[in-house]
Amino acid sequence: MNEIRIFSPATVANVACGFDVLGFCLDHIGDEMVVRKTDKKGVVITKIEGFDLPFEVGKNVAGVSALALIADANPDCGFEIEIYKKIKPGSGIGSSAASAAGCVFAINELLERPYNKMQLTYFAIKGEAIASKCEHADNLAPAIFGGFTLVKSVNPLEILQIPTPHDLFATIIHPQIEIKTSEARAILPKEIPLQLAITQWANMGSLVHGLHSNDYGLISKSLHDVVIEPYRSQLIPYFKEVKMAALNAGALGCGISGSGPSIFSLSKGIKDASNVEVAMNNVYRKTNIKFDTYVCKINTKGIKILNK
Amino acid sequence: MNEIRIFSPATVANVACGFDVLGFCLDHIGDEMVVRKTDKKGVVITKIEGFDLPFEVGKNVAGVSALALIADANPDCGFEIEIYKKIKPGSGIGSSAASAAGCVFAINELLERPYNKMQLTYFAIKGEAIASKCEHADNLAPAIFGGFTLVKSVNPLEILQIPTPHDLFATIIHPQIEIKTSEARAILPKEIPLQLAITQWANMGSLVHGLHSNDYGLISKSLHDVVIEPYRSQLIPYFKEVKMAALNAGALGCGISGSGPSIFSLSKGIKDASNVEVAMNNVYRKTNIKFDTYVCKINTKGIKILNK
Repeated sequence: MNEIRIFSPATVANVACGFDVLGFCLDHIGDEMVVRKTDKKGVVITKIEGFDLPFEVGKNVAGVSALALIADANPDCGFEIEIYKKIKPGSGIGSSAASAAGCVFAINELLERPYNKMQLTYFAIKGEAIASKCEHADNLAPAIFGGFTLVKSVNPLEILQIPTPHDLFATIIHPQIEIKTSEARAILPKEIPLQLAITQWANMGSLVHGLHSNDYGLISKSLHDVVIEPYRSQLIPYFKEVKMAALNAGALGCGISGSGPSIFSLSKGIKDASNVEVAMNNVYRKTNIKFDTYVCKINTKGIKILNK
Repeated sequence: MNEIRIFSPATVANVACGFDVLGFCLDHIGDEMVVRKTDKKGVVITKIEGFDLPFEVGKNVAGVSALALIADANPDCGFEIEIYKKIKPGSGIGSSAASAAGCVFAINELLERPYNKMQLTYFAIKGEAIASKCEHADNLAPAIFGGFTLVKSVNPLEILQIPTPHDLFATIIHPQIEIKTSEARAILPKEIPLQLAITQWANMGSLVHGLHSNDYGLISKSLHDVVIEPYRSQLIPYFKEVKMAALNAGALGCGISGSGPSIFSLSKGIKDASNVEVAMNNVYRKTNIKFDTYVCKINTKGIKILNK
């Protein structure tokens, strides 16, 4: 096999009570990439469509991830990469993670899978670090493993796959505003009240229990973020209105996707998820902010091979 | 049925990363109680053996719990209660919870079970509040439901039953020193670093996942308390030495039981749990502090009927 085309999905990190550790994978929202073996060693990015991103390999998250893998694998060939970017950088649904994860996944396939998913995540973290200035796997883990993941620790890398109830759907609204990562970080407190932390870990434990036991009612009761949301939601216009509209339309829960500006909801069944989309839409179309909305099932497979 | 004898178990609350919400139930360590219907309405405590506790119904946790149930049920009879106390009050393994839970459980049986376990917990909380000056169910829930419980909230009362891996054993050491509840509370910070809170809820999520998936390795990696233990362990002499000895002897994890002074360990299999007991024993017998140790399986049933 000399060429592969893959789909690399968008992902939602944090997931309300799971700040910095939990994530889930979206279906049919994501980038496509074509990776091709070349005789000449090394990595070249030959095409980037959709958004303006650096072709210089050492400055591109996909490129840096590829280099990390290649440094370890030392293959007899090189690779050229085409990136068909559909997830807008900075949208809060794992744009850089999709590039980083997709690229190492594709190269691993072309090399006949010398690495497992945990190892691929490790390489992809190196690329992701270029975009987010720190090593984390909140979006990479769900992109690579699919479903819900809990990144228990980054060093050493420990990723847990939490079961995904069959009927769980996500609705996403992406307001086209820019939130600087530095601002999203700076707004967070260094210390938090112990009582709020207790509420958060009670919700975290019960969310994991709810996912294991297919208990949609409990998932709904657990999807609360009493620690981060009160701060970061200030950076997203109409966050409260969107959240209230989503919950009134039947969402199990609603929160900030990653560090925003996207907002996610989870619903039982596509009908509720579609009603939630309409409700979110109704809030934002009254404003002059451009936005996109998506409805999709939780993707339990992660990155998919389109053809090879 | 006019009389019932029950066994009401000791319990471990907090369980490392699960401060204020998680608990589990111990086997064959606990109190016995005999409850008997009487023609005369009301509640009388006729016997208390083992420890010096108030006979006055309104000042006794079992008495207050019984009164809470009776106020709701309004039965045609009264009850007399005999308490055979084996769990030392203030030991940190749910002494007052055993009395409160056992009493309402027994009366419910004599009344032919008008209440479910959640309702019994609600009544028992009223009694527990006499002892601990606040309404909580960390010890009550595992005593009544058995196994591991997560008290997601007290008001409204939400209790989740988390699966218990079959081969999980507890080792307890109870140093016979007194820690005042007020002191154990006062030593806690009101605010904690966000980074430590994140570690704690990552551990909480992974502990629940580990219990669901029978993953003893993950349970071990999750049994860490980075928030409370650094403070409260200062109140327990030789805590660090006991913990290190327990882990070296094969314990999956070790921490403070409730607010102490008891220390619990969890192990896979009775052999490891017994080795841990020897190791804990070796630390404390070199001191001049009196202590007891126990080894037992996790009790997945909770309160047991001995005869009726």
